[in-house]
Amino acid sequence: MNAPYSHSPEAAEKARILAEALPYIQLFHGKTIVVKFGGNAMTDEALKENFAYDVVLLKLVGMNPVVVHGGGPQIEDMLTRLGKKGEFVQGMRVTDNETLDIVEMVLGKVNKELVELINQAGGKAVGLTGQDGSLIRAKKMLLSSKEDLGQVGEIESIDPSVIEALEKGGFIPVVAPIGTGADGTTYNINADLVAGKLAEILKAEKLVVLTNTPGVLDKNGKLLTGLTPRKIDDLVAKGVISGGMLPKIGSALDAARNGVKSVHIIDGRVPHAVLLEVLTDQGVGTLIRSK
Amino acid sequence: MNAPYSHSPEAAEKARILAEALPYIQLFHGKTIVVKFGGNAMTDEALKENFAYDVVLLKLVGMNPVVVHGGGPQIEDMLTRLGKKGEFVQGMRVTDNETLDIVEMVLGKVNKELVELINQAGGKAVGLTGQDGSLIRAKKMLLSSKEDLGQVGEIESIDPSVIEALEKGGFIPVVAPIGTGADGTTYNINADLVAGKLAEILKAEKLVVLTNTPGVLDKNGKLLTGLTPRKIDDLVAKGVISGGMLPKIGSALDAARNGVKSVHIIDGRVPHAVLLEVLTDQGVGTLIRSK
Amino acid sequence: MNAPYSHSPEAAEKARILAEALPYIQLFHGKTIVVKFGGNAMTDEALKENFAYDVVLLKLVGMNPVVVHGGGPQIEDMLTRLGKKGEFVQGMRVTDNETLDIVEMVLGKVNKELVELINQAGGKAVGLTGQDGSLIRAKKMLLSSKEDLGQVGEIESIDPSVIEALEKGGFIPVVAPIGTGADGTTYNINADLVAGKLAEILKAEKLVVLTNTPGVLDKNGKLLTGLTPRKIDDLVAKGVISGGMLPKIGSALDAARNGVKSVHIIDGRVPHAVLLEVLTDQGVGTLIRSK
Amino acid sequence: MNAPYSHSPEAAEKARILAEALPYIQLFHGKTIVVKFGGNAMTDEALKENFAYDVVLLKLVGMNPVVVHGGGPQIEDMLTRLGKKGEFVQGMRVTDNETLDIVEMVLGKVNKELVELINQAGGKAVGLTGQDGSLIRAKKMLLSSKEDLGQVGEIESIDPSVIEALEKGGFIPVVAPIGTGADGTTYNINADLVAGKLAEILKAEKLVVLTNTPGVLDKNGKLLTGLTPRKIDDLVAKGVISGGMLPKIGSALDAARNGVKSVHIIDGRVPHAVLLEVLTDQGVGTLIRSK
Amino acid sequence: MNAPYSHSPEAAEKARILAEALPYIQLFHGKTIVVKFGGNAMTDEALKENFAYDVVLLKLVGMNPVVVHGGGPQIEDMLTRLGKKGEFVQGMRVTDNETLDIVEMVLGKVNKELVELINQAGGKAVGLTGQDGSLIRAKKMLLSSKEDLGQVGEIESIDPSVIEALEKGGFIPVVAPIGTGADGTTYNINADLVAGKLAEILKAEKLVVLTNTPGVLDKNGKLLTGLTPRKIDDLVAKGVISGGMLPKIGSALDAARNGVKSVHIIDGRVPHAVLLEVLTDQGVGTLIRSK
Amino acid sequence: MNAPYSHSPEAAEKARILAEALPYIQLFHGKTIVVKFGGNAMTDEALKENFAYDVVLLKLVGMNPVVVHGGGPQIEDMLTRLGKKGEFVQGMRVTDNETLDIVEMVLGKVNKELVELINQAGGKAVGLTGQDGSLIRAKKMLLSSKEDLGQVGEIESIDPSVIEALEKGGFIPVVAPIGTGADGTTYNINADLVAGKLAEILKAEKLVVLTNTPGVLDKNGKLLTGLTPRKIDDLVAKGVISGGMLPKIGSALDAARNGVKSVHIIDGRVPHAVLLEVLTDQGVGTLIRSK
Repeated sequence: MNAPYSHSPEAAEKARILAEALPYIQLFHGKTIVVKFGGNAMTDEALKENFAYDVVLLKLVGMNPVVVHGGGPQIEDMLTRLGKKGEFVQGMRVTDNETLDIVEMVLGKVNKELVELINQAGGKAVGLTGQDGSLIRAKKMLLSSKEDLGQVGEIESIDPSVIEALEKGGFIPVVAPIGTGADGTTYNINADLVAGKLAEILKAEKLVVLTNTPGVLDKNGKLLTGLTPRKIDDLVAKGVISGGMLPKIGSALDAARNGVKSVHIIDGRVPHAVLLEVLTDQGVGTLIRSK
Repeated sequence: MNAPYSHSPEAAEKARILAEALPYIQLFHGKTIVVKFGGNAMTDEALKENFAYDVVLLKLVGMNPVVVHGGGPQIEDMLTRLGKKGEFVQGMRVTDNETLDIVEMVLGKVNKELVELINQAGGKAVGLTGQDGSLIRAKKMLLSSKEDLGQVGEIESIDPSVIEALEKGGFIPVVAPIGTGADGTTYNINADLVAGKLAEILKAEKLVVLTNTPGVLDKNGKLLTGLTPRKIDDLVAKGVISGGMLPKIGSALDAARNGVKSVHIIDGRVPHAVLLEVLTDQGVGTLIRSK
Repeated sequence: MNAPYSHSPEAAEKARILAEALPYIQLFHGKTIVVKFGGNAMTDEALKENFAYDVVLLKLVGMNPVVVHGGGPQIEDMLTRLGKKGEFVQGMRVTDNETLDIVEMVLGKVNKELVELINQAGGKAVGLTGQDGSLIRAKKMLLSSKEDLGQVGEIESIDPSVIEALEKGGFIPVVAPIGTGADGTTYNINADLVAGKLAEILKAEKLVVLTNTPGVLDKNGKLLTGLTPRKIDDLVAKGVISGGMLPKIGSALDAARNGVKSVHIIDGRVPHAVLLEVLTDQGVGTLIRSK
Repeated sequence: MNAPYSHSPEAAEKARILAEALPYIQLFHGKTIVVKFGGNAMTDEALKENFAYDVVLLKLVGMNPVVVHGGGPQIEDMLTRLGKKGEFVQGMRVTDNETLDIVEMVLGKVNKELVELINQAGGKAVGLTGQDGSLIRAKKMLLSSKEDLGQVGEIESIDPSVIEALEKGGFIPVVAPIGTGADGTTYNINADLVAGKLAEILKAEKLVVLTNTPGVLDKNGKLLTGLTPRKIDDLVAKGVISGGMLPKIGSALDAARNGVKSVHIIDGRVPHAVLLEVLTDQGVGTLIRSK
Repeated sequence: MNAPYSHSPEAAEKARILAEALPYIQLFHGKTIVVKFGGNAMTDEALKENFAYDVVLLKLVGMNPVVVHGGGPQIEDMLTRLGKKGEFVQGMRVTDNETLDIVEMVLGKVNKELVELINQAGGKAVGLTGQDGSLIRAKKMLLSSKEDLGQVGEIESIDPSVIEALEKGGFIPVVAPIGTGADGTTYNINADLVAGKLAEILKAEKLVVLTNTPGVLDKNGKLLTGLTPRKIDDLVAKGVISGGMLPKIGSALDAARNGVKSVHIIDGRVPHAVLLEVLTDQGVGTLIRSK
Repeated sequence: MNAPYSHSPEAAEKARILAEALPYIQLFHGKTIVVKFGGNAMTDEALKENFAYDVVLLKLVGMNPVVVHGGGPQIEDMLTRLGKKGEFVQGMRVTDNETLDIVEMVLGKVNKELVELINQAGGKAVGLTGQDGSLIRAKKMLLSSKEDLGQVGEIESIDPSVIEALEKGGFIPVVAPIGTGADGTTYNINADLVAGKLAEILKAEKLVVLTNTPGVLDKNGKLLTGLTPRKIDDLVAKGVISGGMLPKIGSALDAARNGVKSVHIIDGRVPHAVLLEVLTDQGVGTLIRSK
């Protein structure tokens, strides 16, 4: 009798890798995965397309991905074109009304580009800001230093009903970090904060944060993983995680503390980083477990 | 025995007007009403708030309003600020890639402002462009004159599923007139065209178009109403409707021809014009019946 | 350019009044409103038609009206025609078996007339007695004075499932105040008691009671409003509300005490009194809040 | 080993009869059975209770019984008490407005009694007239002889939505034969006509008509069964069914002609006649098949 | 007028017996009835057909029968044919791997025969073992005597979701007593244990156990009934129920202790024993109430 | 800044292969895939486990796999153990009643083993024969040669309702090829026939048949693929496909002719052959398209 036709090493390898995905697909079926999209991945065309692809695949295998994005570099570009100079206090952009207009317009454009990329990859994405369906209620962020950040907001509450309506219809929500006050005032909010809080309110299984580093690093640049909120406190106390690393993981840590089962700070420069993180046993950065 | 307490003329008047609304509410219950929002009503704060109010009231009494808006004046403003000069061919803005970027950003901002106004009036609005949920598939508009309009599109098809998902969730869709080609290219589309086509695809009961005139006027400035597609052809042939009036009603006429039961071209400068048109026997412009 | 077409004072007034209704429609959307229909409004043809109109409008704008009616004058008429003389103890009609037969027949006829009026106004009404779907379980009312009222009942329990089935189908229930005992015996029940108890069991937002007075009056005939159960106790103790006024509000007070958010005792002689009360800021009588 | 405990003849007989019901329960599961209740069965207390019992059992085993009743004897009684004398033209009661009032009141009372009996037997019945939910639209019956029957109506159309809403809620509809005109006028309709037409509109599996005879008899008083519309025409032509028998089966014949699969004219004097007809192979009268 | 046609004694008797079933059908409507099928009833063709008939009838009148069967005699037959000799410890069959193979195959065949009989009677049955849908999780039964029973299992847990899915589709589940361990090992389980535990987990109204005796008998062979767990303890203590009778009712007693409202140990040799027990007031054995 | 952490070739390969699966998952989402399980794959433990794994993965990514299996080798084994000798006519096993008993028992055992393997892989499988839910109605297969095959059947009709109920509950149906006649007689049916017919009735997207060859081969042992029913006819006419190959693809060809979009005859000896076929662009045998 004939030898099996496809007993090629390539076929065996493909079968092995697909089969490796099974337990992850089972584990995260029907679960919400919030992905913070940012950093270089937002400006490299190939990485962006990979990212859109990954999100569509997660949706197809039964998870509910929710994407949150920022727009730092694009906002900077536009301000420059318009002859405005960005001013920062404690790492946050001072946002006067004119700047806010520009922030809103740029985030709107970035949002629709991402929506379109996901649609091109075969998904059905819908772009949202915190205004749509009154998703994000915000208030003015007040600094203890009394410096005025202008229209920079912090989150007061989240009403997830528009996200739920879209998920029921099979759509992938893509969220720009704009919120509104009770009186209709618009606020610019840090995208990490929005991703973390959304993950918490949506009882997400995972929060995946794309960065431009391999993950959380110790003072010597060595990757740390398998962390918990408690262990991080410990490492900070011991000086293993230096202060400069901390802001990167602030809202991720909050999410882990408030019930999001696992938070991943991963290297957005790796092609298909999200897919590797969620569907393989190939770690791509730092894992923080809720406990 | 005591005289009735509230037999005041004011009460009687209120009761009469509310009661007058009943047959309209019955007639249009569960029906879709597409409203094209534009003209002065978009720049006058009080008129904008009235408009938001009207849309929320229609939703509450059981209709399904869908809002489509343009952004002409705001786009003009921004182009001027950026030192660009608009160029027009056959009344349509020539849209190079840089202009398209600006159009998208401005429409995005206008969209969210309208969403926020409706939310402030107690509704639950969600802003969309034709990209969201692949709502509007477009293609490049080609002129017989061979002049190149750049990224100006015409509608190829409409997939209403995102609007249906939002309506099922009780949300009011607010649509900006952007579409995408099969390859993901973005197109700027005339808002009247989008409103007319959406009304057709959604099998709307009514298309209400807000303008800056009292409606369709004859050569002497007299308002015409009670029209049908056939009567309009006749009036044009007879020269009663002069050429200058026709472009205003082009897509409205198409909608009437394609099954939208009634099209209203109304005076957006009248406060609560939509409410008066839909819920009272007070005509506010020109009515075109499908037959 | 032309002046706005409909900037007439009349249009402005209409728009203002319709817009005034919006917050009430929002507030009471999906809420149950029990209306006790009685007094002159039941015998004046124009008032009856107005009432039917009001009920249909409430239904259309998203509320769930439930109508309860009595039939005092019509019962008296029929007894007179049949040569029977009504006998009363403590204000309640002594109801022997023959009288009960007549009460049932007259209430049945009144019920269907009201159903028909509502249908003519464009609603879909269904008449019920407490027998239908075992809606009202009753027992014989026993007086401490030991006098026998015959087949006069008090309410033991209410099974709202038939009302729920009809509301799910879009129908307006119209209830005649007849109940049955565990053994199938029929009882005549006071319509105010039925309205109050139904409002309580259905967790109604409002109980609206139509009377022939402007509302609850003090000793000098001045209208009292903004009451609470506690304030009423106080006014009675102080003699401001005289004893003669109290029976009028007995079951309304009970409803307010048992969770019905607001009870309105209004002047049924005012045309469209229900509409004015529910949809305008025009008060039409006495408001009793649950607290 | 012990002899089987319950091998008594009585147990065997019970088992046999219950088992005999199986194929009928299977056959009519989920099907609508319209039952015209009338004749002696309406005045004999034991027969009435049996009837209520039968209806509840049909409902429980999965069928959808709909009861239609008349009220001839009870109307006659009341007219006599009120000193009015019934007048008949072509077997139909001339119905002036006063008579119509009485007909409505009496039918209402009969209706509620039947509702109560079914409730006492463990069912959940709801009484309806053709006014409820605009069930029966009627018009004045005009005789070719030009004699005026007053408010006697014939059926124009039936809107079964109220019956469907009640069946969805598990209720048994009990219908009194009153209809209304487009203008709200009330008409007295023959109960056989209502039963036949309802059976047709509800696509009933069976129409069961209770009478005071053993069924359809030939000239010699012999019971006829296994009929079809065609065979009946034939028997009438041959004079086997005499003219006096025909009016009894008029509307039954119409129902059979219009798609009701089987019509049964059965002897209402037999206890549990409905149960025997539907659940056993014991024929209780005349069967007319649609073809 | 004619005498009623079917006033025959036979008709009256049929009507009486059918009417007698009404309260039982009402009482058990929508309730789960677990039936343990076993003993002679499994080998006598007529009794088997009767049994299938009874199960279909219960389903049709609105109950949810679940059948559990054993296969003792059929297994014995097959072992004999294969030249294997059964070995028993404490009344349980020692089950080596080869025996287990045979047990599974025979139970599979018995299961499908029963499924087919129910289908022939007009039902829609689906056969299951504890493997299907992971219905029964089992573990090795360990004797205190340390003797090894081989692959005999006891129940660790039950996942009723496959039964629920089938009932939603209108199917009758027929369960063979096989379970699996966490590692996939197959176990042979006593059918009485499975029936009792299923009744408990499914919150069954009744557990009906068919045996070859008239029920639970005292030392003199007299049938005992109206028992409770407490009364049984008492009777055993007093020696009224001899030890030999106890194993017969072990799992039945457990079910009664764990919330199954009534347990019936009935004589499977009586034709239609299940029907008589559930739908008539004809007792067919021993009733044990949960309290 | 740090180099991306996981830019390893292995990660890139994994990402590439997972991403390759996306279009297949999209294409076959919600579609039914019938898999005929047979040949060596049924007797090699590792291949069996791989197969179970593949089926669970297809289910998880949103497809509806339905498994059909035969049992040839296992039946042969058992017959030998019981001292019976298989007899074949035209390649089909002559099946007397005793043989049928054994076929049923063996298929039942094979069925449950497969169910258990799928459950162990994390799926929820339920085993069925054509008797369950009256899935397969069969009749005796009659040969033109008049030789009697005994209880060998062919398919008369399929009632897929049990499969639909199980799929609604998230279960994977595993079907053994047994059918029943109208009179309840059991028939042994060829598993390929059952798989083909099920694929047709369930409007399956794909029928995947596992064999022990690399696929359909030409006379020189070269694999043929990209076939259509028409091309096969042609190849047979030309003698390219020799007669000996044809029976292998008979029912597959029928399925392709009757609307199953693609039929795959694949090499069951390749590990994870099903996964490779459905989720990669790695062909594993012969593809027959419906047109």
